[in-house]
Amino acid sequence: MSEKIGIAILGSTGSIGTQALEVIESYPDRFDLRVLTAHSNAALLIAQAKKFEPQCVVIGDESKYLLVKEALEKEDILVYAGENALAEVTTLDSVHVVLTALVGYAGLKPTLAAIRAKKNIALANKETLVVAGELVTKEARKYGVSIYPVDSEHSAIFQCLTGEHMNAIEKIYLTASGGPFRGWSTEQLEKVKKEHALKHPNWVMGAKITIDSASLMNKGLEVIEAKWLFDLKPEQIDVIVHPQSIVHSLVQFEDGSMKAQMGLPDMKLPIQYALTFPYRWKTDFPRFNFMDYPNLTFEQADRKTFRNLDLAFEALTKGGNLACSLNAANEVSVAAFLKDEISFLDIAKINEATMNATQFNTSADYDVYVQTDQLAREYAQNAIQLI
Amino acid sequence: MSEKIGIAILGSTGSIGTQALEVIESYPDRFDLRVLTAHSNAALLIAQAKKFEPQCVVIGDESKYLLVKEALEKEDILVYAGENALAEVTTLDSVHVVLTALVGYAGLKPTLAAIRAKKNIALANKETLVVAGELVTKEARKYGVSIYPVDSEHSAIFQCLTGEHMNAIEKIYLTASGGPFRGWSTEQLEKVKKEHALKHPNWVMGAKITIDSASLMNKGLEVIEAKWLFDLKPEQIDVIVHPQSIVHSLVQFEDGSMKAQMGLPDMKLPIQYALTFPYRWKTDFPRFNFMDYPNLTFEQADRKTFRNLDLAFEALTKGGNLACSLNAANEVSVAAFLKDEISFLDIAKINEATMNATQFNTSADYDVYVQTDQLAREYAQNAIQLI
Repeated sequence: MSEKIGIAILGSTGSIGTQALEVIESYPDRFDLRVLTAHSNAALLIAQAKKFEPQCVVIGDESKYLLVKEALEKEDILVYAGENALAEVTTLDSVHVVLTALVGYAGLKPTLAAIRAKKNIALANKETLVVAGELVTKEARKYGVSIYPVDSEHSAIFQCLTGEHMNAIEKIYLTASGGPFRGWSTEQLEKVKKEHALKHPNWVMGAKITIDSASLMNKGLEVIEAKWLFDLKPEQIDVIVHPQSIVHSLVQFEDGSMKAQMGLPDMKLPIQYALTFPYRWKTDFPRFNFMDYPNLTFEQADRKTFRNLDLAFEALTKGGNLACSLNAANEVSVAAFLKDEISFLDIAKINEATMNATQFNTSADYDVYVQTDQLAREYAQNAIQLI
Repeated sequence: MSEKIGIAILGSTGSIGTQALEVIESYPDRFDLRVLTAHSNAALLIAQAKKFEPQCVVIGDESKYLLVKEALEKEDILVYAGENALAEVTTLDSVHVVLTALVGYAGLKPTLAAIRAKKNIALANKETLVVAGELVTKEARKYGVSIYPVDSEHSAIFQCLTGEHMNAIEKIYLTASGGPFRGWSTEQLEKVKKEHALKHPNWVMGAKITIDSASLMNKGLEVIEAKWLFDLKPEQIDVIVHPQSIVHSLVQFEDGSMKAQMGLPDMKLPIQYALTFPYRWKTDFPRFNFMDYPNLTFEQADRKTFRNLDLAFEALTKGGNLACSLNAANEVSVAAFLKDEISFLDIAKINEATMNATQFNTSADYDVYVQTDQLAREYAQNAIQLI
């Protein structure tokens, strides 16, 4: 444990990125932050760079390169810009773990680059596995790289599987808070505005994932992510609504025994575990107390009203490029919802129409994913215009 | 996995013993039952021996030796009787795991003999660790022997600790059903008869442990057992009442993460895991379904009304031979309650008086335990006469 753990954070200005920096700040003698990247929030990236003094930073938006470059002129920090730089900085020798906390499809390319540079991945960007799970897991095996999940549900499963590599999984249960609209009818959902959807009962997260939580698309994407992370068949994955968000997920083994990982909802814990696995470092995070949660409740997910979860299971079962298409459609439809261009229920409608229109392709090929993503976005965008 | 697992069951006619035989019967190609022993139920021992054809059987009650011997005359089975034989048969070469399912203090001597013969222990006899935890764990370390817990709570902790040997335990929560008198007042408990106490809401068990469950003494003994199994300080052990008996216990690690092991209440699962660790063998036990248990509830244990749990924590904190004394008093007082000689509330009164009268001794010496046990039994017996 004498060597520090070298970290690259892709997406350091987002919700996961900033919480990861809080974790890293708590252990100055044990983490060595080497790389910070941001899509467009130059001001925060500059502030983070000045505070943490990484080896280099990348600003995705090339128009902001000079701004960042000049602000960090007096620091010993290399400044890059653009998508290719994002992929390159993950390959630095001093980086041991790459935390991929970018939003959406954009995470795929740099994650593949990091895997090919034999870096372990702390995966917060679930879309990487949703879009290209077969390719990414194949590459990880080929390069001997581990993928440590950051999503609280998948971290829970991962924690429950520690020491159980010799035992087959019978089934997993991904827990879902149910979001702010749990129990609502279709009629009620028709009137939902983004202000309502952006208020998650338990978790503070970015805008995209908060909308996805409200529409159960996030749980759908997690189902697909779980398939690839833990090598499961669709029928081995179940979703259970648990409004208190204390039980983060469960595994059932072939002997019938179940293990659950639990705790207060706090993303810093799974972030830290993904960076320090298999070790658990002592924290001062608030501890769970049963007296604050004397009732833990569970109910079935309403897949009829919240169509997105059903769509994800359908994409998972049929396989091929359908999950890629679903994800692309959802990125477009959620963006449109956030711009008040479509209603909350339209999100699933556009996702479904796009998935149904997809030209089915089962080859695990990067170019197929790129093309599927592109076509699905165009289809969804057109569908939005027609609403 | 080509060699079968050789098993000795000490106490094969009791609740744990008969359930262990059900488990063993399910895997005829993987288990090899070598030894069966019973305290006094000769008829059942004979029937078990004819069915499973072990290498040898022991009947504890020497007056029944001839009965067993003659009944098994035509079988290729060695028949022994008495306490010494019990200790000797655990040392057979063909035995890999000794399941100690005897009731009470009687488990200590044969368990120590098995440890010294370098046999791994599947420990269902919690009194062994309650009475002589320091000695037994020291001997297990010395002889390189593993102790696999069979109690559902300790099995749960043990399962949660798999793969976590490098990580410190911050705290454990032992769950308690609360027994049939959960929420009752002292006034209500005054009228309890053994018929009520023998009806446990969730678990089917022997008479002694069922009474101990109703009085929370069983949970107290489990607290002490947990201290020795997992090397904990008293303040690291908490008890939480969970009436549904689905969450079998929990571990909290230093990072704040908690793991729970869950499932339907069925002792066959922890029995099997103790025999097959680290492997989990596929079973057809009924599976847990959230829709049957949509509410899991938790409450604080009433240590004021149910004094026995407090006494156990006191014995644990003060250490030495107090737990041995408490256990001996409790065996005597529960036996008296089962004979309608004392009331339900008298059990804890006699236990407390006996513990307070104990001559404190901290040496982890077998003879000290034997003497403490003897004196405590005498003291408790006298106290019963005075009631």
